[in-house]
Amino acid sequence: MHYKPEANYEEAGFTGIRTFMHLPHVKTMDHIDYAIMGHAFDTGVTSAPGARFGPEAIRSRSMRISSYDAAFDVEVFEDLSGVDYGDLSITPGFIEENYEQVEEQLVPFFSKKIVPIILGGDHSVSLPHLRAAAKAYGPVSLLHFDAHSDTWDSSFQGKKYTHATMFRRAVEEGIVNTETSIQIGMRQYSKQHLIENRELGYEVITALDFREMGIKEVIKRANQRIGNTPTFLTFDIDFLDPTYAPGTGTPEVGGFTNTEAFELLRGVAGGNFIGFDLVEVLPDRDPAGTTALNAAHVASKFLALLAYNKKHSIVHSNELTHSKI
Amino acid sequence: MHYKPEANYEEAGFTGIRTFMHLPHVKTMDHIDYAIMGHAFDTGVTSAPGARFGPEAIRSRSMRISSYDAAFDVEVFEDLSGVDYGDLSITPGFIEENYEQVEEQLVPFFSKKIVPIILGGDHSVSLPHLRAAAKAYGPVSLLHFDAHSDTWDSSFQGKKYTHATMFRRAVEEGIVNTETSIQIGMRQYSKQHLIENRELGYEVITALDFREMGIKEVIKRANQRIGNTPTFLTFDIDFLDPTYAPGTGTPEVGGFTNTEAFELLRGVAGGNFIGFDLVEVLPDRDPAGTTALNAAHVASKFLALLAYNKKHSIVHSNELTHSKI
Amino acid sequence: MHYKPEANYEEAGFTGIRTFMHLPHVKTMDHIDYAIMGHAFDTGVTSAPGARFGPEAIRSRSMRISSYDAAFDVEVFEDLSGVDYGDLSITPGFIEENYEQVEEQLVPFFSKKIVPIILGGDHSVSLPHLRAAAKAYGPVSLLHFDAHSDTWDSSFQGKKYTHATMFRRAVEEGIVNTETSIQIGMRQYSKQHLIENRELGYEVITALDFREMGIKEVIKRANQRIGNTPTFLTFDIDFLDPTYAPGTGTPEVGGFTNTEAFELLRGVAGGNFIGFDLVEVLPDRDPAGTTALNAAHVASKFLALLAYNKKHSIVHSNELTHSKI
Amino acid sequence: MHYKPEANYEEAGFTGIRTFMHLPHVKTMDHIDYAIMGHAFDTGVTSAPGARFGPEAIRSRSMRISSYDAAFDVEVFEDLSGVDYGDLSITPGFIEENYEQVEEQLVPFFSKKIVPIILGGDHSVSLPHLRAAAKAYGPVSLLHFDAHSDTWDSSFQGKKYTHATMFRRAVEEGIVNTETSIQIGMRQYSKQHLIENRELGYEVITALDFREMGIKEVIKRANQRIGNTPTFLTFDIDFLDPTYAPGTGTPEVGGFTNTEAFELLRGVAGGNFIGFDLVEVLPDRDPAGTTALNAAHVASKFLALLAYNKKHSIVHSNELTHSKI
Amino acid sequence: MHYKPEANYEEAGFTGIRTFMHLPHVKTMDHIDYAIMGHAFDTGVTSAPGARFGPEAIRSRSMRISSYDAAFDVEVFEDLSGVDYGDLSITPGFIEENYEQVEEQLVPFFSKKIVPIILGGDHSVSLPHLRAAAKAYGPVSLLHFDAHSDTWDSSFQGKKYTHATMFRRAVEEGIVNTETSIQIGMRQYSKQHLIENRELGYEVITALDFREMGIKEVIKRANQRIGNTPTFLTFDIDFLDPTYAPGTGTPEVGGFTNTEAFELLRGVAGGNFIGFDLVEVLPDRDPAGTTALNAAHVASKFLALLAYNKKHSIVHSNELTHSKI
Amino acid sequence: MHYKPEANYEEAGFTGIRTFMHLPHVKTMDHIDYAIMGHAFDTGVTSAPGARFGPEAIRSRSMRISSYDAAFDVEVFEDLSGVDYGDLSITPGFIEENYEQVEEQLVPFFSKKIVPIILGGDHSVSLPHLRAAAKAYGPVSLLHFDAHSDTWDSSFQGKKYTHATMFRRAVEEGIVNTETSIQIGMRQYSKQHLIENRELGYEVITALDFREMGIKEVIKRANQRIGNTPTFLTFDIDFLDPTYAPGTGTPEVGGFTNTEAFELLRGVAGGNFIGFDLVEVLPDRDPAGTTALNAAHVASKFLALLAYNKKHSIVHSNELTHSKI
Repeated sequence: MHYKPEANYEEAGFTGIRTFMHLPHVKTMDHIDYAIMGHAFDTGVTSAPGARFGPEAIRSRSMRISSYDAAFDVEVFEDLSGVDYGDLSITPGFIEENYEQVEEQLVPFFSKKIVPIILGGDHSVSLPHLRAAAKAYGPVSLLHFDAHSDTWDSSFQGKKYTHATMFRRAVEEGIVNTETSIQIGMRQYSKQHLIENRELGYEVITALDFREMGIKEVIKRANQRIGNTPTFLTFDIDFLDPTYAPGTGTPEVGGFTNTEAFELLRGVAGGNFIGFDLVEVLPDRDPAGTTALNAAHVASKFLALLAYNKKHSIVHSNELTHSKI
Repeated sequence: MHYKPEANYEEAGFTGIRTFMHLPHVKTMDHIDYAIMGHAFDTGVTSAPGARFGPEAIRSRSMRISSYDAAFDVEVFEDLSGVDYGDLSITPGFIEENYEQVEEQLVPFFSKKIVPIILGGDHSVSLPHLRAAAKAYGPVSLLHFDAHSDTWDSSFQGKKYTHATMFRRAVEEGIVNTETSIQIGMRQYSKQHLIENRELGYEVITALDFREMGIKEVIKRANQRIGNTPTFLTFDIDFLDPTYAPGTGTPEVGGFTNTEAFELLRGVAGGNFIGFDLVEVLPDRDPAGTTALNAAHVASKFLALLAYNKKHSIVHSNELTHSKI
Repeated sequence: MHYKPEANYEEAGFTGIRTFMHLPHVKTMDHIDYAIMGHAFDTGVTSAPGARFGPEAIRSRSMRISSYDAAFDVEVFEDLSGVDYGDLSITPGFIEENYEQVEEQLVPFFSKKIVPIILGGDHSVSLPHLRAAAKAYGPVSLLHFDAHSDTWDSSFQGKKYTHATMFRRAVEEGIVNTETSIQIGMRQYSKQHLIENRELGYEVITALDFREMGIKEVIKRANQRIGNTPTFLTFDIDFLDPTYAPGTGTPEVGGFTNTEAFELLRGVAGGNFIGFDLVEVLPDRDPAGTTALNAAHVASKFLALLAYNKKHSIVHSNELTHSKI
Repeated sequence: MHYKPEANYEEAGFTGIRTFMHLPHVKTMDHIDYAIMGHAFDTGVTSAPGARFGPEAIRSRSMRISSYDAAFDVEVFEDLSGVDYGDLSITPGFIEENYEQVEEQLVPFFSKKIVPIILGGDHSVSLPHLRAAAKAYGPVSLLHFDAHSDTWDSSFQGKKYTHATMFRRAVEEGIVNTETSIQIGMRQYSKQHLIENRELGYEVITALDFREMGIKEVIKRANQRIGNTPTFLTFDIDFLDPTYAPGTGTPEVGGFTNTEAFELLRGVAGGNFIGFDLVEVLPDRDPAGTTALNAAHVASKFLALLAYNKKHSIVHSNELTHSKI
Repeated sequence: MHYKPEANYEEAGFTGIRTFMHLPHVKTMDHIDYAIMGHAFDTGVTSAPGARFGPEAIRSRSMRISSYDAAFDVEVFEDLSGVDYGDLSITPGFIEENYEQVEEQLVPFFSKKIVPIILGGDHSVSLPHLRAAAKAYGPVSLLHFDAHSDTWDSSFQGKKYTHATMFRRAVEEGIVNTETSIQIGMRQYSKQHLIENRELGYEVITALDFREMGIKEVIKRANQRIGNTPTFLTFDIDFLDPTYAPGTGTPEVGGFTNTEAFELLRGVAGGNFIGFDLVEVLPDRDPAGTTALNAAHVASKFLALLAYNKKHSIVHSNELTHSKI
Repeated sequence: MHYKPEANYEEAGFTGIRTFMHLPHVKTMDHIDYAIMGHAFDTGVTSAPGARFGPEAIRSRSMRISSYDAAFDVEVFEDLSGVDYGDLSITPGFIEENYEQVEEQLVPFFSKKIVPIILGGDHSVSLPHLRAAAKAYGPVSLLHFDAHSDTWDSSFQGKKYTHATMFRRAVEEGIVNTETSIQIGMRQYSKQHLIENRELGYEVITALDFREMGIKEVIKRANQRIGNTPTFLTFDIDFLDPTYAPGTGTPEVGGFTNTEAFELLRGVAGGNFIGFDLVEVLPDRDPAGTTALNAAHVASKFLALLAYNKKHSIVHSNELTHSKI
C-alpha cells in the first residue's frame, strides 16, 4: 500500500475536495511515512486570533504545488507514502484541556515513527506536539524559525499557557534539549528577555545576528546544533516579513523573504526530523493569499526533507531507547 | 448503510476537511438518496470567469449550516442518506468536450434515481445535467431561478454553447418540456428576446412581473406549472440582488433578497425534484463571503426539499418509462 | 450622424476602452442629445475623499448594461444620439477655481440644449453644474436624492464651499428655484438644520417621512413639485443604504434599496430634465463593486428618462427665454 | 460637570483620537449617566474569532454619527453626561477568569446607577455583565436581539462557558428573570433546542415567527414582556442579515435589515434600561465596514433610549432594593 | 503626424478615459511606431481565470507613469509615435477560433513593421502573436520571462492548446527559432519536463540557475542568445514573486523582485524587438493593485526599449526577407 | 512627571483607546521631550487622496511595537517623556488656510524644544512643519526619504501649493538650508526636473544612484550632509517599494525594502533631529495593513533616534540663536 495523490495531469488541479496537495483523506496509521493534519486551535494568541482557519487556507493553496521539488531533486510522493489525516479533535477556548486531548492523539504517530506534519493553529499548539514527541523519543531538539522566541514566563494576568510561553514550558518539562536546539529569526524582545532566553540554553540567532553573519553561517550553525539528534522543526510563518506573510497574528517588520526561508530549509537537508509544525497562518488578514501560499510551500519542503533522506538512504538511529512510554 | 456527517456537537464545525455540510466524501452510488458534487467549469461565461472556484467556496461556507431546517421542519440528515461525491472530471477550456464528459458521469446517478445536487461552475454546465436527466426521465420540467433566461441563440462570434444559450439548446434537443417549465426573476433582456423566449414555450416571470404580482402568486404559478412532473431545479445565484450576491459574473441590479429566495423554495415543497444545480458563485468577487453563504443555504434547501418528501411520504411516479437509455 | 456604441453582440462586453456603456469617446457638441462626462473632483468632502475615481469605476461597471430598459420600455441608444465626452478639466485641491473652470466648460452644452450627464466626484461639484444650467435656463428646479440636504451655511473653520453647503449657495445665488424643488431621503441633520432647510423653500422628504408616506406618495409629490419646469436631477449615491452603496464618503444607515431608487426614477418619467449628475461614488471603499454597479445603472436610467421623452414625443418648452447669457 | 464630546462643527470629524462619537476618554464614575466601554474578549466563540477588535472598529465608525437622533427627537449629548471609559481589563484565552475580572470592574457602575454601554467582544461577555447587573438590581429582564438563543447547555467537549451557553447559565444562576425576558430573531436551532429554550421561561420570537406576526406585534410583545422592570438590552449584530452585517463570527442568512433593527429599538423607548451590550462585530470579515457602521448606530440608539427617558422625565423605580451587594 | 498623449502637467493624471499612459485611442496603422492593444482572452488557463480583465487594470494603473524613463534616459513619447489601439476582437471560450481571429488582426501590424505591445490575457495568447510575427519576419527569437516554460505537450484530457503548451506548439509550427531563444525564471517543472524543454532547443535559466549565476551573467547570456535577430519579448507577470505580483493565475513562490525585472529589461537594450506581450495579470486577485502597477511599468519599459533604439539610431535589418506572406 | 504608556504586560496590547504605542493622550507641553500628533490633511495630493486617515491607521498598527528597540539598544519610554497629543486642528479642502492654522499650533512646540513627531496626511503638510521649525531654529536641514523630490514649481493649473511643490517653496521661503540637506530615493522625475532640483542646492540620491553606490555610502553622505545641524527628518512612505507600502497615493515601483529603511534610520543615529514627519499613508489602499505597520515602525524609530541621543548624552547646540520669533 502506497498512499499518494490520485490527482494527475488528466485532472484539473482546481477540482476536488481540498486535502493537502490532493493527498487521500484516510484515517490510517498503517503503511504511511507521514501524516498531514490540521490543528485548528487559536485560543493561545496574545493578539489577533483566526489561525484556526489556517489549515483550510493552506490546503486550498497547496493544490498546485508540484510533486517534484527541484531544490531537493526529489519526487515527494514517490519515495514516501502518506495521507491527509484531517484535523485533530480539539477543545476550542480551553488551552490546557486541548493540550491533553491533542497529545493523546499524537503519541501513537510518534511511537510508530510516523512523522506528523501539523498545520496550525497558533503557535501554542507546539507544546502538545513536543510532549507527544518526547513520549516516544525522549527530549528532542528544536529547530525553530520565528520572529519570536516564545519563551516568556507568562502572558496577561500571569497566564502560563499561551503562544508566547510554550518553549519555556517545554524546557521546564524536560521535553526539549536546549543544548541541541536553535532559534532563528527573532526580532521582538526586550533586552532582558533575550538574556533569559539564552540562559535557558537555546542558541538564538536574532534577525540582527542573521543579517550580520549571513545565511550560510546560519545554516552551518543550525546543522552543528541539531546534528543527527531527533529534531522537531517548528516554523512560525511570521519568520517571514509581513510583506511576504501579512496573514498572521503578530507580524514583525524587518523579516525574511520566502527565498531565504526555502534556502534555510534546503540547508538542513539530511537532518533527523521526527515531526514538523507550521503555525500562525491567519487567512482573514491575507487578502492576496500569499501567506497561505508561502506556508503551503514550506509544508511541502517538510515532505522534501523526508523524501531527501529516503532517496539518499539516510537513516538516523531514532531508536526509541529514550522513550518514556 | 446510512451516509451522513460524522461531525456532531462534540467536534468544532470549523475543523475537518471541507466537504458539503461535513458529509462523508465517498465515491459510491449505493445506499444514497442524493449526491453532492462540484462541477468546476467556467469556460462558458460571457463576462467574468472564476466560478470554477464556486464548489470550494460553497463547501467552505456550508460548515455551520444546521441539519434542522425550521422552515421545512425537517432534519435533513435523518431521513436521507447521501455523500459529498467530490467534483466531476472536466475538460477546462473546451465546452463541448466537457459536456460529453460530464453527461456520461451523471447518467448513472439519474438512472438509479439518485438525486444529484450539483454545485457550479457557470450556468453553461446545466446542459449536460439536463441531457443526463433526460436520458433517465425523458424531457424534464425546468424550474429556473435567474436574472437571465439563458435562451439566446448564440453568443460572441456566433458561438452556440455558452452560459447564455443552453436553455434554448435544451429545447432544441427536446430534453426540456417547456409546457411544464417556468423561469423566474429575469431582468436583463431585449424586448425581442423576451418575446422569443416565451415563444419557446417557457412561462417567464420577469422581475417586473414578480414585483407586480407578488411572491404568493409566483409560488402558485410555479407549482401549477411543474405539477408533479419530474423537475430539474436550476438556481443561478444572480437571481439574488448583487447586494446579496456580489460574487457572480453577471450581476443584475434590482434583484431579490435571500429571504425571498428561501420563501420561494419553501413554496415549491412537495414537487418532484429529480436533480438540482446551483451555479455562478464567483468567490474572487465575494469579499465578505455572503454570496457563498447564501448559496450554501440554497443548496441546503435542496436537501430540505428532498427530506420534506421523504418525511411526508410523498412519492412521485418517476417511473423510467420515458427513458431513452 | 447618430452617435451610439459600436459594441454589439459580436463583441464581448468586457473588451474595449472603458467609456460609459461603450459609447464612442468623441469631443463633439454636434449631433448629440446628451454627453456623458466625468467630473473627477473631490476636494469638497467633509469626510472620506476618493470620489475622483468615481467616473472610472462607474464606466467600468457600465460595460454590461443593456441598451433596452424594460421598466421604461425604451432602447436608449436608438432614439438618442450621444457620446462619452471624457472628463472635465479640473483644478484639484482648489474648489473655487475649479467651480469657475467647470462652469465655463458646461455652459455651451446647456446653451445648445445638450443634456450633460455628469459623473462625480463629490457632491460639491453640483454648484458649477447648476450655475451653468442657470446661465442657459434661468433658475432651475432641483430634484434631489440624497441622505443629506447639503444646505449647511458652512463647514469646518467657516468655509463656505464644500459638499455640505452648495444647495444653500445655489439658493443665495438665485440659480435654483426652491418653490419647484424637492429633496428626498435625508437622514442626517440636526433639528434646527431641518427647519432652516425648509425655510430656504425646499420641500424636504426625510427618510422618516418617506417610510411613513410610502413611495407612491413620494413620487406624486416629486412630480407635483417639479411639474414641467426645467429640472436638474442630482443623485447622491448615499441615498442608498450603505449595504447597497458602501463605497461613498458619508454613508448613512437606514437608507433605501436599489429597487426603490429605480422605482422613483421611473416615477418621474416625463419630467423636463435638462441636466443630471450622479455623485459620491468612492471606489476605494467599494470592495465588491456594488456601489459603482448601482451607480452605473442610475446613470443609465438618466438616459432612459431622456429616451422616454423622445419616444413619447414629450417636448417641454425649455425656451431659453430666461437665459442670462 | 457635564461630559460630552469636545468636537464640534469647527473640527473635522475624521480627526482626533478614536473614542466613541468623540466622547472624552476619562476614567471617572462621577457626574456621568453612562459609560461606553470595550470588552475586547473573544475566547468564547464556537466559530470565527476576532471580535476582540470590535470595539476599535465601532469607535472608528462612530465618528460621524450625529448627536441629534431624529427618530427619537433627542440630542443625545445634551441631557446626558457620559464618557468613553476605554476598555475593560481582561484575561484573553481564559473565559472563567475573565468573567470574574470583568464582573468586579462592572459592579461599581451598576451600583451607582451608571448605565454601562459595553462594546464586545463575542457574546460570551454578556454573562459577567448580567452578573454585575444582578448584584445591583437583583434578577434583571433580558431584551435580546440575536440570530441565536445562546441557551445551549454546553459546547464542544462539554464546555459550559462559551458564547452559545451564557443565557442558560444566567437562568441557572438566577440573575435573569425569564418571565420578563424576551428573545427576538432566532434562526438557527434544532427543534428540541427551541422547546428547551422556551422551557427555560424565555419568550422566543424566531425569525419565522417575526415574519408572520409583523414588526408592530413584535414591538408590542417586547414592551409587554419587559414592562418597566430593570432591563438589560443585549444586541448581537448577527440579528442583522449577513448582507447588512457580514462581519460577524456566526452569520445566519434570512435575517433583518438595519431599518428594522432601528425601528425595534425606537419601539421600546420608555423602557427601564439599566445596561446594554452590543456584541460579535468581527472587523476582519467586514471589508466594506458596514457591520461596524450599523453597530455604531445601534450603540448610538442606546444613548437615544437613555436620552429619551431623560427628556420625557421618565423615571423608573430601579431602587436597589434587590441588591445582593 | 505624431501620436502621443494629450495629457500634460496641466491636466490631472487621474482624469480622462483610461488608455495606456493617456495615449490617444485611435484605430490607425499610419504614422505609428507601435500600437498598444489588449488581448482580453483567458480561456487557456489551467488554474485561475480572470486575466481577461488584465488590459483594463494595466491601463488604469498606467495613468501616472512618467514619460521620462531614467534607467534608459529616454522620453518615450518624443522619439516614438504610437496609439492605444484598443482591444483585439476575440472569441471567448474557444481557443482555436480565437487564435485564427487574432492572428489575422495582427499580421498587418507586423507587416508594416509596427511593433505591437499586447496586454494579455492569459499566456496562451502568445501563440497567435508569434504566428503573426512569423508571417512577417519568419521564425523569430523568443526572449521569455516566466515562472513556467509553457512547453508541455498537452494539458487536461490531452488538450493541445492551453497556456501551458504554446511554446512547444510554436516550435512544432516552426515559428520560433529556439537556437536564438532563451527562457528565464522557471521554477515549476518536473525533472523530465526540464530535460525535454532543453531538447526543444531553448536555453533555459531556471530560478535556481539564476540565483547561482547572478543577474549580470543572465543578462549576458540573454544578449548572446538573441543577438540582433528579430525577437519577440514575452513577459509573464508570474516571473515576479507572488509578493510582488499576487494577481496572477499560477503564482510560484521564490520568484523575482520588480527591481530585478527592470534591470533585466534594461540589460537587453539595443535588441531587435519586433513585438511584445505582457500576460497573466489577474485583477480579481490583486487587492492592492501592485501586480497591475508592476505590469504597467514593464509595458512602459517595452516603450523605453523601442525609444532607446530610436534615440541611439540603432537600426536592425529586419528586412522582411523571411516573410511567408 | 514622566509620560509614558500605562500599558504593560498585564494588559493585552489589543485593548484600549488607540493612541500611538499606548501613549497617554494628554494635551500638555510640560515635562515632555516629544509629542506625537496627527495631521490629517490630504487636500494637497495630485493623485489618490485618503491620507487623512493615515494617523488612525498608524496608531492602530502601533499597538504591538516593543518599547525596546534592539537595533538602537534603547528603551524608548525610559529616557524620554512624551504624549500622544491627538490631531492638529485643520481646514480640510483649503491648503493655504490650513498651512497658517497648523504653523501656529506647532511653533510653541519647537520653541520649547519639544520634538514633534507628526503623522500625515499627504506630504504637503511638511511646509507648515518647516515654517514652524524655522521660526524656532532658523533655516533647518532637511533629511528627506521619498520616491519624489517634491520640488516642482507648480502642479495642475499652475497651483503653487500641493504635495509636489513644498520643498521648492521651502527653499524660496528660506526655511530650509539646502547646503545641509539631502534627498534620498527619488525615482519619478523628468531629466530637466532633476537638474533643477540639484540647482536648488539639494544633494539628491536617486534610486538609481542608491543602487549603484550602496547603502553604506548613502548613510555616509547623509551624515556628512546634515552634520550636527538642526535637522527635520521627513519620511514619505512611498520611499518603500509598493510591495512594502501599497497604501499610498503615488506609489513608485523599484523602491526600497523596510529593512533598508530601518538600516538608513539606524545609520543617522546621533543626528540633531528637531522634528519629524511621516506622510502619505493611505489606509483605503492598504488591504493587508502592511503600509501602516511599516509606517508605525518608522515612527517608532524616530523615538529611538531621540532616545539614542538621550542615552548617549548627545547634546546638540540647538540654541535658539537663529530664531526669528
